[in-house]
Amino acid sequence: MARPLELDPDRLFPADPTTRAIARRLYDPIASLPIVSPHGHTDPHWFADNGCWTDATSLLLVPDHYVFRMLYSQGVDLDTLAIPRIDGPPKTDPREAWRVFAQHYTLFRGTPSRMWLDHVFAEVFGFDVALEAETADHYYDIITEKLATDAYRPRALFDRFNIDFLATTEGPQDDLAPHHRIHQSGWPGRVVTTYRPDAVIDVEHEGFGAAMERFAEWTGEDVFSWSGYLAAHRKRRADFRAAGATATDHGHITAATANLSSTDAEALFARIVGGSWTPADAELFRAQMLTEMAAMSVEDGMTMQIHPGVARNHNAGLFASHGRDKGADIPMRTDYVGALRPMLDRFGNERDLTVILFTLDESTYARELAPLAGHYPCLRLGPPWWFHDSPEGMRRFREMTTETAGFCNTVGFNDDTRAFLSIPARHDVARRSDCAFLARLVAEGRMAEWEAAEVALDLTSRLVRTAYHVDTPLKPAKAA
Amino acid sequence: MARPLELDPDRLFPADPTTRAIARRLYDPIASLPIVSPHGHTDPHWFADNGCWTDATSLLLVPDHYVFRMLYSQGVDLDTLAIPRIDGPPKTDPREAWRVFAQHYTLFRGTPSRMWLDHVFAEVFGFDVALEAETADHYYDIITEKLATDAYRPRALFDRFNIDFLATTEGPQDDLAPHHRIHQSGWPGRVVTTYRPDAVIDVEHEGFGAAMERFAEWTGEDVFSWSGYLAAHRKRRADFRAAGATATDHGHITAATANLSSTDAEALFARIVGGSWTPADAELFRAQMLTEMAAMSVEDGMTMQIHPGVARNHNAGLFASHGRDKGADIPMRTDYVGALRPMLDRFGNERDLTVILFTLDESTYARELAPLAGHYPCLRLGPPWWFHDSPEGMRRFREMTTETAGFCNTVGFNDDTRAFLSIPARHDVARRSDCAFLARLVAEGRMAEWEAAEVALDLTSRLVRTAYHVDTPLKPAKAA
Amino acid sequence: MARPLELDPDRLFPADPTTRAIARRLYDPIASLPIVSPHGHTDPHWFADNGCWTDATSLLLVPDHYVFRMLYSQGVDLDTLAIPRIDGPPKTDPREAWRVFAQHYTLFRGTPSRMWLDHVFAEVFGFDVALEAETADHYYDIITEKLATDAYRPRALFDRFNIDFLATTEGPQDDLAPHHRIHQSGWPGRVVTTYRPDAVIDVEHEGFGAAMERFAEWTGEDVFSWSGYLAAHRKRRADFRAAGATATDHGHITAATANLSSTDAEALFARIVGGSWTPADAELFRAQMLTEMAAMSVEDGMTMQIHPGVARNHNAGLFASHGRDKGADIPMRTDYVGALRPMLDRFGNERDLTVILFTLDESTYARELAPLAGHYPCLRLGPPWWFHDSPEGMRRFREMTTETAGFCNTVGFNDDTRAFLSIPARHDVARRSDCAFLARLVAEGRMAEWEAAEVALDLTSRLVRTAYHVDTPLKPAKAA
Repeated sequence: MARPLELDPDRLFPADPTTRAIARRLYDPIASLPIVSPHGHTDPHWFADNGCWTDATSLLLVPDHYVFRMLYSQGVDLDTLAIPRIDGPPKTDPREAWRVFAQHYTLFRGTPSRMWLDHVFAEVFGFDVALEAETADHYYDIITEKLATDAYRPRALFDRFNIDFLATTEGPQDDLAPHHRIHQSGWPGRVVTTYRPDAVIDVEHEGFGAAMERFAEWTGEDVFSWSGYLAAHRKRRADFRAAGATATDHGHITAATANLSSTDAEALFARIVGGSWTPADAELFRAQMLTEMAAMSVEDGMTMQIHPGVARNHNAGLFASHGRDKGADIPMRTDYVGALRPMLDRFGNERDLTVILFTLDESTYARELAPLAGHYPCLRLGPPWWFHDSPEGMRRFREMTTETAGFCNTVGFNDDTRAFLSIPARHDVARRSDCAFLARLVAEGRMAEWEAAEVALDLTSRLVRTAYHVDTPLKPAKAA
Repeated sequence: MARPLELDPDRLFPADPTTRAIARRLYDPIASLPIVSPHGHTDPHWFADNGCWTDATSLLLVPDHYVFRMLYSQGVDLDTLAIPRIDGPPKTDPREAWRVFAQHYTLFRGTPSRMWLDHVFAEVFGFDVALEAETADHYYDIITEKLATDAYRPRALFDRFNIDFLATTEGPQDDLAPHHRIHQSGWPGRVVTTYRPDAVIDVEHEGFGAAMERFAEWTGEDVFSWSGYLAAHRKRRADFRAAGATATDHGHITAATANLSSTDAEALFARIVGGSWTPADAELFRAQMLTEMAAMSVEDGMTMQIHPGVARNHNAGLFASHGRDKGADIPMRTDYVGALRPMLDRFGNERDLTVILFTLDESTYARELAPLAGHYPCLRLGPPWWFHDSPEGMRRFREMTTETAGFCNTVGFNDDTRAFLSIPARHDVARRSDCAFLARLVAEGRMAEWEAAEVALDLTSRLVRTAYHVDTPLKPAKAA
Repeated sequence: MARPLELDPDRLFPADPTTRAIARRLYDPIASLPIVSPHGHTDPHWFADNGCWTDATSLLLVPDHYVFRMLYSQGVDLDTLAIPRIDGPPKTDPREAWRVFAQHYTLFRGTPSRMWLDHVFAEVFGFDVALEAETADHYYDIITEKLATDAYRPRALFDRFNIDFLATTEGPQDDLAPHHRIHQSGWPGRVVTTYRPDAVIDVEHEGFGAAMERFAEWTGEDVFSWSGYLAAHRKRRADFRAAGATATDHGHITAATANLSSTDAEALFARIVGGSWTPADAELFRAQMLTEMAAMSVEDGMTMQIHPGVARNHNAGLFASHGRDKGADIPMRTDYVGALRPMLDRFGNERDLTVILFTLDESTYARELAPLAGHYPCLRLGPPWWFHDSPEGMRRFREMTTETAGFCNTVGFNDDTRAFLSIPARHDVARRSDCAFLARLVAEGRMAEWEAAEVALDLTSRLVRTAYHVDTPLKPAKAA
């Protein structure tokens, strides 16, 4: 007989009865607030086309590297899971892949993926039995069946999930047509883009050459001259703002910034596009471009997000066979205090600039990030990211940043996900985790309960709406 | 109607009733023990002159960079808060500054500043309504009024706070006259100095040249020769001991130490004072001087404190306009295991030397500091410092150091503050936090309650008194 | 009157009654499971000879650097504790040494040594009064008396402790005769060796030259040629497997690996054995040898353990007088993400290879180790090691690794001890700590209790048995 699937209504709340009761009272009024998802990787075509997803495997397993990396670590090969290779998808029956996943579902005990997936299974699909080998086909059939109905089309789920604002992520080389179609469709869902120019900034990225060609085409600028290149960024930023973007995003290897003279910057750029660059040049150019992007954000008001510190594609063999985003990205020790100084020397005291810092190196929370954000007017701390977007990760983030940076220098939650169906689950984990933390402060006499209730609302709504300009349209860009 | 201000008598104790009851029993006997404040930055003129402070803003806001850095991070400019510029104070009405502070008081939710200030408001000034925009003037008026009374003069508060020992911090370039006046006044309060020679050791410090001139004047030594320079240190250390000092303090950028031959040290010193030094020379000289200071501590018995790992004056623009200590100091990753080795090679096994290590890099607690202090006879661990002098910071310190270093290799609490009125608040937070930690050990069967009571007393009194020679006068210095 | 010694039956379980009850229910069925001790430093002669230990000091104090380092840090000299110098043991009466230890026993409050020792005193020797100055002789007498009985001989305790598998650690230079004698004795206790070749790999180790000579003798190979050296490793690995070994162990300074061409490796080896090596060569050779050892593990199936990141013999004076393993080893910041890449590029995707990573740098748990182990099929995470083998250390390990690596990429507990009598105590602490962690997950609705019970069993038994091939004999080595 199948095991039941039940979500504990008090999940993630501390066990102590006094604290738990406080957490529950803090959570109740925010539990159903609209979702603001200011940073993520959903596909705008979903909302533009509003087509049906086809099956559980292609929707829930194949795009979720959190999930298949765990299976891979335990010896399950990626072909078995229907994960596409560079030269195309394997000939794996998606139902068979789903069965393998179900057989291994116990591997996820204690992980956030397990919480998110169970939430999706129970709340989105209505399952009341747990996923395991015996129920694999039942799950696969029901999910396939439901996905074929109108209630499970992207826009219907967007509405059902009570999403108020959803940002996707595109590059300057990308076509914004899906966003234009969404906006022209009359559908009121607010799906916007985000300007992520990594592919035209990181010359070590395998797609740099192609991205630069597209960048030139979209803008009509001579992107191989320094002035044309900067002008092209300004044009694309304007295009993105017209498609609703309120923010940029920068996924650099390190947090290094630079502040070169324009002569030196131009000479560096010449080496980059001329192909005579060294790895140090590539790093310096990324560093300089963070400062250039900050300069443009001062002009146009776009909030800037910096996501540094990952060794991408760490598994050389897997990168060769399967390409990027296959669960082989590994965080690295990351410096902020020295790295950000050149940019902060120029723009640190700007009150109208918002730079949101993320990290995968938790040792920087209390040591560097909270002290930086607790001083510089332009800096804010992004929520726990990626491997740390989890109950324990969120607890550590609050415990290590709040005392120095306060709540006020944080920006609410980012789900940062490709897994659209998991968005409510992820926001719910964040809301519960924040209430658990606040409840402890209240129970320990460190904050009044009415104050904690205000903070819970700040963390769920006010801070994110402010940091990402959700409610206040950006003004036209100032001249450079 | 104004919100009430009430301090929870059980604040900072765990919510679990069993654990809370233990914490309370541990705390009761130590709650009112005399305060030993062996390291801080109060102004000796206060106790020498015993004049009245004038108003809330100049007493509580302007000197407290913990407070104004948070306001600054949220876009409040420093002029508005009456923070002086290098060229003098702004023309800000102190009452207006106080109102701005009061309006932003919610920013401090979840921070130790909030706990300390509320303690000061309730316990020192007797407020029973909370600080907010509506009560700003009420607060300002009452505080101003009380400060004009004798009961709020420095010596009266010193007595009321039950302070047994208070160390200020001066440099070799400073006049010890205020300390002499205190001692000659007949007032029995024990206010002593601490020898902090950074300004004559760090050639990169903006005040190095002027400090060296004063150093020469006070000592009559040729401080620009290596032997004269060392002799001058010995003389000033003797002066400081005569003014009650039992400790030195060293606020270096890193924890680097060196152990040069005297020929090499002399040559290095010649470059330093000759102006031909490189940044590496400056660092090596600071490193060498830590070892020289340890050598002198072996002679004269002064406890040595090392406070490394801060990028001072990180905000270049703010440093230019406002100078140092304006909330723009940012911790850095800090190495101890390699850095201290040269000094430890010489003096690590000395049983009569006490070197107290502080850190702003919590990743070193369990990895480096506890193993070092749990082995070397001369080493002790200072309490959580600066950004970590907080309930969560204290909890992490105990959790990460106790299992390897024990309690015995720690030295009680340092308030390290310029904010005199907050001293009882800070010690109370430390005492409560320690009792909370101990109560958990008792509740989890890891220590008997009578043992925890002994440890609570050790942490509050015995360890600090021993480490800083509070009760045992230093012997005359041995010959070098 | 002497204080009682009582072990709290609920020790290490959270105080909250709901959580505690769950922890107790999880712990009960695993409390008495057989001990698998797959990595440690007990002496095989004990089990070969089955002689009596003589006294408390030589059994419990002298070999335990966790204990005497703490006493040393508080000014007790090592002679007083009967710790041998390089030139022989001091003339210290072992009873006097024991008295000094007993007088200082309060220093261990809050440390795992205290928990382990009390467990040994109560459970192994049956004491019901605590160790303190007054009971020192009572302890010393009773322990001496009991050690003289058959019930306290090594094999009898091995059986009483319910040990199912115990691995010692030997080098290629060591004689495996004690292991052969154990196996030939007919005693069914499973004591096996582990291949730890550091002494013939680390040219900076003071015993390198002598170890290489012995390596040549045991193998009959020309160990000073690259091909002979590799062949000698293969022969000794086969010898060790014949003596029951299922694993190798590598205690390197860093986690660096390398992947040189065979020409470059041969040239490097020539410099190493030719004496013309630089420190960089020494490091590169260690790095290359990790990859060579991984290659041999792919051939012969031995699990590979990497223990990096310690500055050995940090105290130069003490090393000169007392030699290694005297409590003066200090952890260092350790990189894995870059360091392991060369080896992972070759073998990271091998499913039949198991490489267990240990660390003393907890900042790598969530940042590097869990992401690496949560992706690469060959990687597993070893339990908290050395300074972190403690209740708080174990809690941090689970909190920082589980959400990314799951439980499945960990390998149960290692006691890693020379202190044979403490083995049950250490495993009990680990089992209780894991149940405490799991109970919190259950109480917070993050896992069903039946699942937690399965995980508790995995952590105690299944994972360690699998990772170290306890139940499945290794196959004959494949040809290189």
